[in-house]
Amino acid sequence: MIVFMSESAADADLLRVSHKARTLGLTPREVTDGSRRAVIVTGEGAAVDPEEFARLPGVASCDAAPRACLLAAREAREKPTVVTVRGASIGAGPCALIAGPCAVESADQLQRTAERVARAGIRFFRGGAFKPRSSPYSFQGLREEGLRLLENVRRQFDLRIVTEARDERTLPAVLEAADIVQIGARNMQNFSLLEAVGDARRPVLLKRGGGATLTELFLAAEYILARGNPQVILCERGIRTFESSTRNTLDLSAVPVARRHTHLPIVVDPSHAAGVAWAVPALARAAVASGADGVMIEVHPDPSHALSDGPQALAFDAFDALAAELRDLSAWMASRRPIW
Amino acid sequence: MIVFMSESAADADLLRVSHKARTLGLTPREVTDGSRRAVIVTGEGAAVDPEEFARLPGVASCDAAPRACLLAAREAREKPTVVTVRGASIGAGPCALIAGPCAVESADQLQRTAERVARAGIRFFRGGAFKPRSSPYSFQGLREEGLRLLENVRRQFDLRIVTEARDERTLPAVLEAADIVQIGARNMQNFSLLEAVGDARRPVLLKRGGGATLTELFLAAEYILARGNPQVILCERGIRTFESSTRNTLDLSAVPVARRHTHLPIVVDPSHAAGVAWAVPALARAAVASGADGVMIEVHPDPSHALSDGPQALAFDAFDALAAELRDLSAWMASRRPIW
Amino acid sequence: MIVFMSESAADADLLRVSHKARTLGLTPREVTDGSRRAVIVTGEGAAVDPEEFARLPGVASCDAAPRACLLAAREAREKPTVVTVRGASIGAGPCALIAGPCAVESADQLQRTAERVARAGIRFFRGGAFKPRSSPYSFQGLREEGLRLLENVRRQFDLRIVTEARDERTLPAVLEAADIVQIGARNMQNFSLLEAVGDARRPVLLKRGGGATLTELFLAAEYILARGNPQVILCERGIRTFESSTRNTLDLSAVPVARRHTHLPIVVDPSHAAGVAWAVPALARAAVASGADGVMIEVHPDPSHALSDGPQALAFDAFDALAAELRDLSAWMASRRPIW
Amino acid sequence: MIVFMSESAADADLLRVSHKARTLGLTPREVTDGSRRAVIVTGEGAAVDPEEFARLPGVASCDAAPRACLLAAREAREKPTVVTVRGASIGAGPCALIAGPCAVESADQLQRTAERVARAGIRFFRGGAFKPRSSPYSFQGLREEGLRLLENVRRQFDLRIVTEARDERTLPAVLEAADIVQIGARNMQNFSLLEAVGDARRPVLLKRGGGATLTELFLAAEYILARGNPQVILCERGIRTFESSTRNTLDLSAVPVARRHTHLPIVVDPSHAAGVAWAVPALARAAVASGADGVMIEVHPDPSHALSDGPQALAFDAFDALAAELRDLSAWMASRRPIW
Repeated sequence: MIVFMSESAADADLLRVSHKARTLGLTPREVTDGSRRAVIVTGEGAAVDPEEFARLPGVASCDAAPRACLLAAREAREKPTVVTVRGASIGAGPCALIAGPCAVESADQLQRTAERVARAGIRFFRGGAFKPRSSPYSFQGLREEGLRLLENVRRQFDLRIVTEARDERTLPAVLEAADIVQIGARNMQNFSLLEAVGDARRPVLLKRGGGATLTELFLAAEYILARGNPQVILCERGIRTFESSTRNTLDLSAVPVARRHTHLPIVVDPSHAAGVAWAVPALARAAVASGADGVMIEVHPDPSHALSDGPQALAFDAFDALAAELRDLSAWMASRRPIW
Repeated sequence: MIVFMSESAADADLLRVSHKARTLGLTPREVTDGSRRAVIVTGEGAAVDPEEFARLPGVASCDAAPRACLLAAREAREKPTVVTVRGASIGAGPCALIAGPCAVESADQLQRTAERVARAGIRFFRGGAFKPRSSPYSFQGLREEGLRLLENVRRQFDLRIVTEARDERTLPAVLEAADIVQIGARNMQNFSLLEAVGDARRPVLLKRGGGATLTELFLAAEYILARGNPQVILCERGIRTFESSTRNTLDLSAVPVARRHTHLPIVVDPSHAAGVAWAVPALARAAVASGADGVMIEVHPDPSHALSDGPQALAFDAFDALAAELRDLSAWMASRRPIW
Repeated sequence: MIVFMSESAADADLLRVSHKARTLGLTPREVTDGSRRAVIVTGEGAAVDPEEFARLPGVASCDAAPRACLLAAREAREKPTVVTVRGASIGAGPCALIAGPCAVESADQLQRTAERVARAGIRFFRGGAFKPRSSPYSFQGLREEGLRLLENVRRQFDLRIVTEARDERTLPAVLEAADIVQIGARNMQNFSLLEAVGDARRPVLLKRGGGATLTELFLAAEYILARGNPQVILCERGIRTFESSTRNTLDLSAVPVARRHTHLPIVVDPSHAAGVAWAVPALARAAVASGADGVMIEVHPDPSHALSDGPQALAFDAFDALAAELRDLSAWMASRRPIW
Repeated sequence: MIVFMSESAADADLLRVSHKARTLGLTPREVTDGSRRAVIVTGEGAAVDPEEFARLPGVASCDAAPRACLLAAREAREKPTVVTVRGASIGAGPCALIAGPCAVESADQLQRTAERVARAGIRFFRGGAFKPRSSPYSFQGLREEGLRLLENVRRQFDLRIVTEARDERTLPAVLEAADIVQIGARNMQNFSLLEAVGDARRPVLLKRGGGATLTELFLAAEYILARGNPQVILCERGIRTFESSTRNTLDLSAVPVARRHTHLPIVVDPSHAAGVAWAVPALARAAVASGADGVMIEVHPDPSHALSDGPQALAFDAFDALAAELRDLSAWMASRRPIW
């Protein structure tokens, strides 16, 4: 529930709303939605009658089931959100590149890939230690061992690590290796996990579910923001459609839509969208030109032997060529300051 | 990974495969896939080379990344799976009815609804205590208090309770009230939660995700089966399409497809699919006639004031009429033994 | 454009609107939308300013780009539309069966199939002489020869023929053999063809396009009705979705949605929706139970050698069994007078 | 049907196949599919047994229902197809721009828009005289008068006109004004119209249907090519998905997929895909960067008063800025010769 205060509301009115919420076993959080002040009330269970709040002094209105995002909304902040990790930023201007293998498979595979990514001047490195897979019989990731390998390449090549959290239970371990915690597409509406990373105060890369609307993506981000973690990066990675020549259909409209409706940075993952390496360069360039704040590319020393998603990974040479191309295009974009 | 044994494999060969798996820190489980014997190896992390197993004596082949289900496959059992709770069954013949409100909202609402459902001769009662909602500001359910209320109506009206588990953390509490644990559509690929209910040895109603294929639904069931819990009920509740006159598009083909490919019972939820009460009777009848093993209907004493999904809930009188209609149609179906 | 008259409008006001339209080179048609009177103005090209009509006496309002249907709307008629051909009706009560092969292939194939369909007591016979096919190299139908074969079985077995018109040019030939002209899914928005069958005064079976919303289907029907042909039957035959275990996804919600929004009868084609014969019986029963006014089934003497869509055709024995089942279920439905 | 000849087939063998086809009332066309020779047999109706051809001397195999394209396939030509109209090309290198209003509305509107488009250095001008609209009550275009207005701006500003053909009947009139005939999305599988433009020997811009796969788009192109018209331009304009923040979902993967599977140029229409002007610049840039051979933009002197699709049209100033941006980006792309 959101309790919107009237313009003339006094500070005491806000306090009274918060106190009322606590009395009912709820958690209040005061926020400023542009010029309006409001109290977000998140529930620990009670089915509260909005009327109980609506009649308090200084309250303008109550919205018990808002469908739009509030903290993620563009109006909620004067400037776009920028996520910065040890001097490297996403959302600050030129399109950031994130690269790495789908999954951490071995020390050698990770070492070689990280070395190549770093050499290409890329500062964000992706790689999954916990891999949610459709089949229980598929490779599920190296788990804790994978995290240790990621920590190694982080130190060795000064890379910022993006790696996925699969559940609340293993989140603390993931947080040791992750500079940015990824929430995978299948977990986009795993609200308990969203709340947990909301409490974790670490940047979160939130992937859009293959069957989720953009409004639902923004509301999923809202779950994280509502717990007090403002560092959310949205990620478009393709949606489910009837077209079968690619694995998913990359919905690049997500970039202008996110720009219009939220202040959060948005990253595009053409590798998972396409599902085939030969379509990645065209879609990666398109993502940069659309104005995305980042592009995430899968690269593997030997794609044909990858333990997951090999068909969509670029081999080293193709990756080098694409990285150079994307850097140039990002520079062109940054210099043009394109219209929206 | 699945290790298929040759027809001539000796028991010692099977033991050797299992031992090898344990040596590598993996969990083996011997299964019989129709006439074939196999060892399912689920991973605790190591990226194992299938070749290591393929060369063991008695091994026919190894499949490291199977896309089809194995334990859920029709061939895996001679007879269809029947889930029975205190004498009431799903999958045994006549279509079972499951009814109740979307969410537990209050003692009075639950009491009145349960009384009505029981009076209609229905033995399975649904109601969510933990409600995953798209917005963090929407009513999230009465949680533990909701579970207690469900336990009350279970005792009072001898109802079998179907209620949703939102995460691993609150699963133990849910298991106290739930005769059948529901995994919601958004959690269909929350694999950690699937593994947890797989360990729980309680019947599971697994809802298809709005963006998930039937193959993915069967593989999600496989996660539960692979942990040793055979009591899985599939549930079709509508998929995401471009059509907007209903909330989702009910995919009734799920019934014949599930019948053809798995031995698991399948239940249809026309309420969530339609999203509007006026379309529920037509779709509920269609579900029964399609041969579904169960139909799940939402009913509420006062739909216009429901705290979640009111537009799709039937009021009491409409519900009574529909329940009678569905019972008659089920009887017709059971007497006809329809062709497939 | 639709010009809505005020309640107090005089007949002279209506005449003035129609005259104005003719002056501008447009075609007016007076209609009664429930209690309201209106003039439908269909354009021969001019970009007319609605203001020119809005300021005429007796005019309540003008809608230059209505998104909803008017003549097809439920409010436009007191009773549902019934289409009757030589004593056999669609929309009058019990669910009508329409059966036959996908395409007319030979005299023998047609003869044998028609004989079997007639023997099953079915009065509507389908079969395509002009087949729109995705590939130019696929069998396109026997064309005029196919029409002659259809005329033969019509005479011989007293069947009402449903056959497809592919274009305006061959429509006159099709009209000689067709009791009901089918507009195929790919031509649902071929507006010139819709206008031509609107002028033809023959019942039309209008199939929903695989990528078309129900609103668009109703508006396509409106094109036919607006030309003065009231005998339109809607047909749901599956939509395009991400699910691939069936060819299309049958959207049975179309039945209650059509019932709620239009007075036109609606028929369901489970064969094209499923694309596989083994799913047809379950979906056909579901269609009857949903309250559809008709079900259209494909049957072939030798499905594995059919020249088009063989996998979805039923062989004779399976067809006989299903026809009997559907007839019984229709009788059950008709006796129950089911709720909506 | 396609009859593939063996490598050792003599010219006489080819003649024999063609003769056989004519004997059966069919139309043969000899083609070279890369190194293989083949005879395409398109049907005038007979259901021919492929075996009759397969047993002729020199015949390697017959494919009676090919699902893939043949003449449109990349292997069918050594070089990509380039469509050139009075010195202006699509497919020859830098991305071509096509701009204009959705519909021709008046002499003044067309004059002002054409003047602005020409001044921006753009050589292709779009504008519909025949507008297929979902509702029969919406503005259907100025028809013949609209064509005359297009002829005027063609002369005055030396523009190449792209305008839509709605049906076979009005095609001859359209051909007088059209340098490139557009087949709209709803007519993509209007095969009679495809055959008519295939006979017309004028370049064709073939728009992908909102519910059509890319394979179906390529096969629709094949209908045109099989009639002897090689000048086909594909056009991606968004597909139907569950996402509702844009009108359609632009599927930019169409560009790399078309590049991989066909030799035909591909143009992107971000205006119809987005349905909202504010998303057009981002998607237009993305289209250029993806490697599209052309981008088609809607522009209108007064979008808020446009008679069709106003919300997606750019006003003049925004259009000028975007055109400049796209020209620069095209130059960057042309200079980079990007990887695929």
